[in-house]
Parts: sequence; C-alpha cells; structure tokens
Amino acid sequence: MPILVVGSVALDSVQTPFGEAERVVGGSAVFFSAAASLFGPVRVVGVVGEDYPLEKLEFLAERGVDLSGIEQAEGESFFWAGRYSHDLNSRDTLETRLGVFADFRPRVPEGFRDSSCVFLGNIDPVLQLEVLDQVTSPRVVACDTMNYWIEGNPDALLELLKKVDILLVNDAEARQLAGDHNLLRAARWIQEHGPEIVVVKMGEHGATLYGPDWMFFVPGFPLEVIFDPTGAGDAFAGGFMGHLAAAASFGLDDYKRAMVYGSVMGSFAVESFSIDRFHSLDEHDILKRLMQFKEMTAFEHRI
Amino acid sequence: MPILVVGSVALDSVQTPFGEAERVVGGSAVFFSAAASLFGPVRVVGVVGEDYPLEKLEFLAERGVDLSGIEQAEGESFFWAGRYSHDLNSRDTLETRLGVFADFRPRVPEGFRDSSCVFLGNIDPVLQLEVLDQVTSPRVVACDTMNYWIEGNPDALLELLKKVDILLVNDAEARQLAGDHNLLRAARWIQEHGPEIVVVKMGEHGATLYGPDWMFFVPGFPLEVIFDPTGAGDAFAGGFMGHLAAAASFGLDDYKRAMVYGSVMGSFAVESFSIDRFHSLDEHDILKRLMQFKEMTAFEHRI
Repeated sequence: MPILVVGSVALDSVQTPFGEAERVVGGSAVFFSAAASLFGPVRVVGVVGEDYPLEKLEFLAERGVDLSGIEQAEGESFFWAGRYSHDLNSRDTLETRLGVFADFRPRVPEGFRDSSCVFLGNIDPVLQLEVLDQVTSPRVVACDTMNYWIEGNPDALLELLKKVDILLVNDAEARQLAGDHNLLRAARWIQEHGPEIVVVKMGEHGATLYGPDWMFFVPGFPLEVIFDPTGAGDAFAGGFMGHLAAAASFGLDDYKRAMVYGSVMGSFAVESFSIDRFHSLDEHDILKRLMQFKEMTAFEHRI
Repeated sequence: MPILVVGSVALDSVQTPFGEAERVVGGSAVFFSAAASLFGPVRVVGVVGEDYPLEKLEFLAERGVDLSGIEQAEGESFFWAGRYSHDLNSRDTLETRLGVFADFRPRVPEGFRDSSCVFLGNIDPVLQLEVLDQVTSPRVVACDTMNYWIEGNPDALLELLKKVDILLVNDAEARQLAGDHNLLRAARWIQEHGPEIVVVKMGEHGATLYGPDWMFFVPGFPLEVIFDPTGAGDAFAGGFMGHLAAAASFGLDDYKRAMVYGSVMGSFAVESFSIDRFHSLDEHDILKRLMQFKEMTAFEHRI
C-alpha cells in the first residue's frame, strides 16, 4: 500500500561533536521518506523554496518516492540550524527561518488521494486536518505533533486525534499532551481521546507501543558513535509505517515488527548527517540489524 | 548454589507522592535478599544497631535467608531519610546517619566461606576486597558501587574490578567510572578493567547487559503507579543473581533470563514501601510477570 506523507522538507545546518554539515537536506517528510521507501512506495506532499537542491532527493525518486506533491514556491526553503551538546542529550536551536513553509497549505495531488496509509508529519494540526479532508478512504492514519502545537492549538489537535489511528510522539510530548508524568497513564489518556495505538519514542532509550490491551517495547540500538541525532524520530516513523504499509496488515505481530523496523531505521539515521546513510542501505543491512535486535531482546523461558 | 551477600542493612524513612514510611527496613542487602530468596538460599553479612527490628526480617529467614552473619553492634543502625519528587525522577536526601555502619568490617562466618555466588553490595571497595579474601572458591563474583567510591577511592575500586566477574551499576555510575558519556563505550572500558559482564541499570528505562561479544536488553515494566522507587536496583540485582545461582549455570541463555528476572523483581519492589511486596509474592506472580515481559519484547521475524 502506498504511504502519503505530509511534512517539512527543509535545509538543516547541524553541528555535532563529530563535525558540521551546512544546508543539507532534512525535514520530517524527507527523513520519513528515506526510511519508508526501503519498504515500498511513498508519496510526499510539502513545499520548498527556489533554493532547494531537489536533485539531492533524486535517489529517493529512483527508489519509488513520488516527489510530485512537493510544491516549489517563490522564496526561501524552511531552514533550521542547531548545535548538539557534547553528550548529544540536548541541542540548541541557533536559527529557524520558516520561509515558504510559513504559508504552506498542503494540496494533495489527485493521484495521491486514494492513499491507504497516511502519515501526518509534525505541522499545524489545522493543516493536518485539511490533509485528511483531501484523502478519500485511508485504511490507517498516523500523526506526529510537538510542544508548539500542544500549547498553541490544543483544540485543533484534539479534533485531529479523534480522526487518527496511531499517534507517534516522544516521551516529553506524550507527558505534556496528557498532563501526566507517568507514561502508561499518559498513553491511556491519549487513547481515550482517539488513537487506538500510541507510540512513545524515547530517543536512545527506545520506544514503547501502547495498544488497546497490549504493549510492546523496543530498545534503542546501542552505538559507539551517534554521529547526528537529527531525524531519528522521523526515520523511526518511516520504518514503522513502511513495514505496516508493506505488510498491508495491522495485527499484533505486524505492529511488533513495525516497532523493530522503526528502531532499526532510527539507528541508521543517526550514523551520518542528513539522509546520507540511506543512500547505500539495502535489505541485507536492514535484516542484519533486525536480527541483532532479536538477539538483544529474545529470551527462552524455562519452567 | 547459595549466594553470599554483603551490604547495608538499614532503616529508611521515605516520602513519596503516595505516602510516607517511617524507619522501615531497607538497605542493599535487605532488598537483595528479599528478591534473591525467591530463587534459592541466601547468606547475609552486615551490621545493625541495637534499635533494629530484626523480627521484620523473620519471614526472610523462613524463606531460606541465613541472617546469622548480621552482627548486632552497640549503637544506632544505618539510617537514611529521603523525599522523592512529584514525578519520582529525583530524590532529596533529608538525613543520613551511618551509625554502626561507619565502623563496619565484614566478617564472613565460617559456614558462609564456601559460597559459590558472591554479591558485594555498595560499600567501600576496601571492604569489598576484604570479603573476597574471606571466601574460598567463589564461582561467580558480582559487585555494585556508587559515585562516592568512584570519586573517593578509585584505586581500591580498580583493584576490586580485576577480581569480579560482573559489575552491576546504574547508567550515571557507568559513565562516571569510565569517563565516557556513551554507555556502550563506557561498558567496553569497564570490561577492559576486569568484569567480563557489565549490567547497566537505567531505572524506568530498563537495563542492558554488555557481554564479551553480545548484548541483552530488558525494559522496565510499565506501571501506572510507582509507589516507592527505593531498593529497585538492589531487588534487580537479587533477581539477577538469584536466577543465576538457582540455574548454577552461566551461559548466554542463563544471563538473558537473569536480566528479565532482575527487571521483574525491580518492578515488584517499587509497588510498595520497604520490602512489603515480597511478603506475599510467590512463584506464580513471578512467572506471570516474566511472561508479560516476553509478550512485551518478543517478535516474530518474517522474511
């Protein structure tokens, strides 16, 4: 099943303890697509300015990412500059310029409207709702959000939540949204407000899926060098949704595998700047890391 | 195989968002024994003052904990008072009185010296070394430590590390000991200084075991109410060592199961004040939670 993703298509300047990258391609829709496209077709809706190096996304197009929904508007692309701390546990935003993203009104192309899987990246919940109005019969809708919208537009966000099946957020966002520091209670609160499935991402600590009457946990993959954490959460979402769409099935086992594929793709994302690691990645690399997760978590019970 | 544990036998006054407990039994050796005794025999070496309610440990004796190595000395028992923050993520120490623990010199009774499994709770590494001098032929030695000894007596600690097979510490301690914020690299550093197995406990985020050429991860058990976090790490160590000693086997699968039993026992410890939860706990409760961990982490791989 093809996945429709709507989100930011940005330029990032990133400083990490290991180096610097200047105006490299990034944004939630880009990291998501780079990961999800390794599982099946992806359709992107977004906006860039005249300065965007669209040729850098060409390898994604060759891999089945339909970029025709990316509008090129007059002006500058969304630009973010940030610096990570020595231990990578915090980052300072040095500059944010919304550019053409400030007036973004997602238009879903005719050919994308029948998408069965929809991922609403972290944008204004009003716009996320507008996207849902433009798709005809999605089988599964997932969305992300952030503190800015939780504080700034809670009504639209709650309206949106009623219409989504899966919410993917980080632990701080889940706590803030529910107003509860306990993640299990926070997830239950969110479920009562719409999404049957809540995925809480916890960075290096992994991610937990809260289902209707079951839970699943996947660790972060232990790495000696985390080169650049930017985009890890979006790559997680890409692996998660990519597997679900490829399986075209939404049972317990599908969701469990989706969680592991999410963590696998997140772990690859942080090994390089931008989406560089996804250039050379193939099915063998992905399966190898999946099996490493299995070895790291599976145990034999013995009475 | 019986386990010898040496550590603190204390009185705790604890304030949590859910209530207060006054001068209840606690200390690393007590939490460890409460958990480990559900797997097999335990021998305790420690010291208490004249004020200690030893009758509160009577149920442990009935369960196979040999308390004859607990010396009762003139003076006050080790006392700790603390208050947890609203979200349980931090705690303030309100009072610490070492009492008879200040002059503690562990004497391992003759009948304990043949113990095959040894757990050196978090005390001065000089004393931990003295305990090792008193045991004849341990098959496996594990130890804990803390920031106080890492800063205050690094030489004795490094001397000790050469003689232990397993180090169990929390993430902050592992980072501090190795001087490296990356946990995988920190674990490798520790392994180069002695212990083949490094277990890093991360509170609600679970624990990772770093072996010679493999890793294993177990999550924290999601609970809606964490009543009192005190002793969770020691109960983890008790479940971990308890299973290894009961299995009398130290292969990959034994260590993996030991990690899960550790997290199971840590999750029970936080459900009540003191060691209260261990009074009523039976094999059925433990197995049930073990199976919940399995459901929460096991996934079927499909090509």
